[in-house]
Amino acid sequence: MANGQTHQTDVVIIGAGPVGLFTVFECGMVRLNCHVVDVLDDAGGQCTALYPEKPIYDIPGFPRIEAAELIVRLKAQASPFRPVYHLGQQVQAVEPLTGGFWRVTTSKGTVLQAKAVIIAAGVGAFGPNRPPLDGIEAYEGKSVFYYVTHRETFSGRKVVIAGGGDTAVDWALSLAEVASRVTVVHRRDRFRAAPESEARLKALAQAGKIDLVVPYQLHGLEGSAGHLSSVVVSTLDGATKKIAADVLLPFFGLSMSLGPIAEWGLALERNQIEIAPSTSATSKPGIFAVGDVVTYPGKLKLILTGFSEAAIAARSAYALIRPETPLHFEYSTTSGVPDA
Amino acid sequence: MANGQTHQTDVVIIGAGPVGLFTVFECGMVRLNCHVVDVLDDAGGQCTALYPEKPIYDIPGFPRIEAAELIVRLKAQASPFRPVYHLGQQVQAVEPLTGGFWRVTTSKGTVLQAKAVIIAAGVGAFGPNRPPLDGIEAYEGKSVFYYVTHRETFSGRKVVIAGGGDTAVDWALSLAEVASRVTVVHRRDRFRAAPESEARLKALAQAGKIDLVVPYQLHGLEGSAGHLSSVVVSTLDGATKKIAADVLLPFFGLSMSLGPIAEWGLALERNQIEIAPSTSATSKPGIFAVGDVVTYPGKLKLILTGFSEAAIAARSAYALIRPETPLHFEYSTTSGVPDA
Repeated sequence: MANGQTHQTDVVIIGAGPVGLFTVFECGMVRLNCHVVDVLDDAGGQCTALYPEKPIYDIPGFPRIEAAELIVRLKAQASPFRPVYHLGQQVQAVEPLTGGFWRVTTSKGTVLQAKAVIIAAGVGAFGPNRPPLDGIEAYEGKSVFYYVTHRETFSGRKVVIAGGGDTAVDWALSLAEVASRVTVVHRRDRFRAAPESEARLKALAQAGKIDLVVPYQLHGLEGSAGHLSSVVVSTLDGATKKIAADVLLPFFGLSMSLGPIAEWGLALERNQIEIAPSTSATSKPGIFAVGDVVTYPGKLKLILTGFSEAAIAARSAYALIRPETPLHFEYSTTSGVPDA
Repeated sequence: MANGQTHQTDVVIIGAGPVGLFTVFECGMVRLNCHVVDVLDDAGGQCTALYPEKPIYDIPGFPRIEAAELIVRLKAQASPFRPVYHLGQQVQAVEPLTGGFWRVTTSKGTVLQAKAVIIAAGVGAFGPNRPPLDGIEAYEGKSVFYYVTHRETFSGRKVVIAGGGDTAVDWALSLAEVASRVTVVHRRDRFRAAPESEARLKALAQAGKIDLVVPYQLHGLEGSAGHLSSVVVSTLDGATKKIAADVLLPFFGLSMSLGPIAEWGLALERNQIEIAPSTSATSKPGIFAVGDVVTYPGKLKLILTGFSEAAIAARSAYALIRPETPLHFEYSTTSGVPDA
């Protein structure tokens, strides 16, 4: 789709991650057309950009699915409704027009006009939190990685994973199958991970298949020309030790920024958009939000929760755009899709 | 599992339909064990009993999946957590015990004791609404069917479908591919179906591939020994006409009954259980409810909505059962499952 053009559509969806893609489908099922904007060059959000090979276990009906495969399937499910994607561009302004329309302008000058905007922006623009280690820049991309895109890269290597969250624990479990050695460094004995995963990690540590170095934190890196030889860790009282390492994976979470969305006058709570869960409506009529970017009492940050919010948002957008034709549309099996 | 026994577990789930099965998985992910009771002899609820071959289009990640296949996959996803199923028995009583436990008793005398009960009972006990036609009983099961379990049964036959809802429309679309003739009788010109499906139905009618007989209603049946020869229909002012038919499929919805659940003192609204959507809690502490059996402002009766409620209910049950160990458990990809 050429940049710098003006398009008219029913709904503009901001964000082409899993929830944004499913929002296309849900809008399509109520016959609303969508244009989708994403700052990344490909659809899929974090699933594609950060962890394409990472298995996800809690998508209903998929005992296990890799993130990239989920995106392929969600795109296929949306495709009969012919969404128009505007990728590699950030939405910069959302402004009201007369007649209840919104004008959405992107960083490439694309202008979209629609009665409804659905924000599915996840964590917004995102990047890794970097540990404050001297000279780490020289190792980044060579032996220090903040994401795993291909697990096999670490086959037969000595891997040190730093962090105590789900990403650290899940990758420790996964890489233990291919790496020559996996060491997990965490500043506490307790992990902030799914209880089931933490239990597996500790069982592997007990069996000698993973080294747990706790409570320790990263202290320094040794190596040359970007190639790591060891990771130095320290206790809180300053005692240090060295761990032989080919690779360091620091998993300290993402730094996230809502970006321009924070400037649109929507009610926010701690950098998340407040919505009414019964409608997915934000504080601005005609602007809805779904997925990890939203907050309300009891909100769970699960992909499957975003799917449910997408179904609600699509129906709310429908009621706004086609008030003259109420929907009679209820059960899951009721729905035909157009031939692809 | 032997009947008439007493079992202790973390959670009793009432209903083994798609949402009940996914509730097992979500409870398992927070390490709660489940026993599951269903009045039917197989897991799967309506998906298995009423429409195993019917395609479902709105399960996220599945552009199209048959109901029976969805159930197979949800059972597989739940199985690592070793749920115990008590099938072919109805829960008759749910009574409080001391210490915050509930005692659940089934029609086969099985007794389950648990701190949390999650009701995923769908429409409750269900059966078809029968049209009031003289002598229809003689045709039922021979040429009058209220469910389609095998589409190929109708190959090459003259099929009359009565009704204007999604089931009528979807089966008209599907059977038009195999039947020698499909006629749809409905008392209005307008259908209560997904807009996309209704549009396809009308396009097929326009192309002469389906007969729409509207506004008409069923008036009588002609045939002998259970074999239909024609269906008589009438306008509202009494004019009748005959449609040659081998088969009549009356799709007037299901009559549904909550059964004993209605007697447990839960707050109900029009035969549905009121829950707080942020917790899935009913009016009784320790009893939660999810899926089509519940109501709250903005509730959508979609399977995917039930999945989201299941995730919430499992976390609420966890907080009740293990108050001393708060969950640190957030994102979809965070989750390991035990080896099956």
